[in-house]
Amino acid sequence: MQGSAARYAADTVQMQKPSSRTSQEAGQAGELVLLRSIRERAGQGFPLRRLAASGVRLGIGDDCALLRPRAGEELAVTTDLSIEGRHFRLGWHPPQSVGHRTLARGLSDLAAMGARPVAAFLSLGLPRELTLASASGKAWVELFMDGLMALAHLHGVPLAGGDLAESPVAIADIVLTGAVPRGKAMLRSGARPGDLIYVTGSLGGAAAELALLGGAPELFATRTAASGASPHLYPQPRLAQGLWLRKRGLASAAMDLSDGISTDLSHLCQASGVAAEMDAAAVPLGASATLDQALHGGEDYELLFTAPEAARIPRRIAGISVSRIGRILAPKSGESNVMLRTDGCPKPLKPQGWEHFSEG
Amino acid sequence: MQGSAARYAADTVQMQKPSSRTSQEAGQAGELVLLRSIRERAGQGFPLRRLAASGVRLGIGDDCALLRPRAGEELAVTTDLSIEGRHFRLGWHPPQSVGHRTLARGLSDLAAMGARPVAAFLSLGLPRELTLASASGKAWVELFMDGLMALAHLHGVPLAGGDLAESPVAIADIVLTGAVPRGKAMLRSGARPGDLIYVTGSLGGAAAELALLGGAPELFATRTAASGASPHLYPQPRLAQGLWLRKRGLASAAMDLSDGISTDLSHLCQASGVAAEMDAAAVPLGASATLDQALHGGEDYELLFTAPEAARIPRRIAGISVSRIGRILAPKSGESNVMLRTDGCPKPLKPQGWEHFSEG
Repeated sequence: MQGSAARYAADTVQMQKPSSRTSQEAGQAGELVLLRSIRERAGQGFPLRRLAASGVRLGIGDDCALLRPRAGEELAVTTDLSIEGRHFRLGWHPPQSVGHRTLARGLSDLAAMGARPVAAFLSLGLPRELTLASASGKAWVELFMDGLMALAHLHGVPLAGGDLAESPVAIADIVLTGAVPRGKAMLRSGARPGDLIYVTGSLGGAAAELALLGGAPELFATRTAASGASPHLYPQPRLAQGLWLRKRGLASAAMDLSDGISTDLSHLCQASGVAAEMDAAAVPLGASATLDQALHGGEDYELLFTAPEAARIPRRIAGISVSRIGRILAPKSGESNVMLRTDGCPKPLKPQGWEHFSEG
Repeated sequence: MQGSAARYAADTVQMQKPSSRTSQEAGQAGELVLLRSIRERAGQGFPLRRLAASGVRLGIGDDCALLRPRAGEELAVTTDLSIEGRHFRLGWHPPQSVGHRTLARGLSDLAAMGARPVAAFLSLGLPRELTLASASGKAWVELFMDGLMALAHLHGVPLAGGDLAESPVAIADIVLTGAVPRGKAMLRSGARPGDLIYVTGSLGGAAAELALLGGAPELFATRTAASGASPHLYPQPRLAQGLWLRKRGLASAAMDLSDGISTDLSHLCQASGVAAEMDAAAVPLGASATLDQALHGGEDYELLFTAPEAARIPRRIAGISVSRIGRILAPKSGESNVMLRTDGCPKPLKPQGWEHFSEG
């Protein structure tokens, strides 16, 4: 949190100034307490020695954090915005799940490049009631931080800064920084005709779980990060798999699957200037998932990658299955850049991922 | 914008899926068009050669951006959240001012460390109506980008990524990355008893301008970045002054003035483990500003720094005046860490900057 409490007050002094301010203690009662709690949480399990090893020379508390990648490394940066009512529902998602998913989205982008995480930065906008202790004890924001920090510890990612403000709706913007040897990051743009297409894990499980939970929202609270596979509430970013692929230089292109493969593969093809054909029977279906959910559901946070036919891609990478699902083709003009082969017959597969601001 | 359009759809597929999706074109009608417009704006004036010189090896369009600081540099990272109704009002602030202020807040943090800007990342959450062209022509978001990119060009800062989502209120989270030679960043924690305290420019001007405009909101629209000093609507981050100080190693501590010097100087003292005494008569007042606005108003985005008495600090740095306003003292226990001397008599100065979530 840059600038300790200072950063959290900028710009609002004249617009919302409280009518009375009687003492420094009163001013510290609100945001400073929350800030200190977040700083303490961020520090737990991340002593200075561990921060330095990750590449964080200066964390929370000054105007900026300072990152020092190792010699020969470049820095990967990604940001992901999560908004109440759009990316999660307060009445459905446990706060721990919202925190977990916020961080998972950013980590998944690092995984796609084959980067090792360096540090996360979190900007939180929260209605006041989410910062107050509830009847059951902890404030929503504390449980949110529980979920976020549990995943941060799992992957050794320190929280090195951020911002905090009151907001009419809950929003969380996560910034992830990662390091990768110069020129070695996996990109979307390297796929070539003849390359084979692979995915990690299985697809559609997140959509299937949300469909199940949405029918009985009381079920949301029964699932935790520890209680087993829960691909919608607690997706697992594939950092180990991304690192494995990047270190061996096997993948010609890679990205993460956030919007559904019908949309994501189309974007990979666009970035690489190629087309693709997928085999419907080869798509690995998640628990209870339909083919439609696997193709268009999104939020699986698996890796999609391509590799030359000669590359030896194992069936499992770091404990997660890998499936070959199709092949890269020469670019085609005037039609969909992704074909889906069902019962031997290829048909255009239209991207059906969600687009904000569309008229559809 | 990481992941081109893909990043803008993540997580919302099942929660807000449109009832019909008839063609790729329909899906592209909304967010993709807006995204392309932002990408085009981000690219204008920033050819690849210029991006590479700044340290951006890969900008908008993949899962992450890639930054490559020069040998011997470390990376400064800061995030600042701006929320409609808290940091700006749609009915008051011209969209160009909101864009300008969003970027200025982040640049000011880089200035405080003495970092040169490398790249900005922007996460935008917007109500749909702000993305649609208005009767007068451009959409709100386009005018917002006009203001943001004008300041970005002024300081040579490319926009290298971000995220975009629909939101019930307008929010903008800006991430700034900058580079600074290893171990040379100016910190808040270096002030020592006997050091003198300086500020750039003048204080309270932003608060005075807002007080004036708030009384006649129709005046907001009459001011532009080009129409002269407008410290509230178009604050000028002190990047050149921060760089000048850092290169010469003159400052023992530095930070930016975002919350009002009564709060900010207290934070600097806390970080340095010292106390301070300010001379009320020496505080440089902005146009029409009262001493109260200069001490507590905030949003001036000037630099506050300290230097040993022997350091030769000029009266102007890169065209901006520098004022000596006080002295660092040994730490005091049990009372305010900042004293204000008025007519020869020192009294405790309580921090009166805004704190979110306080009960005040």
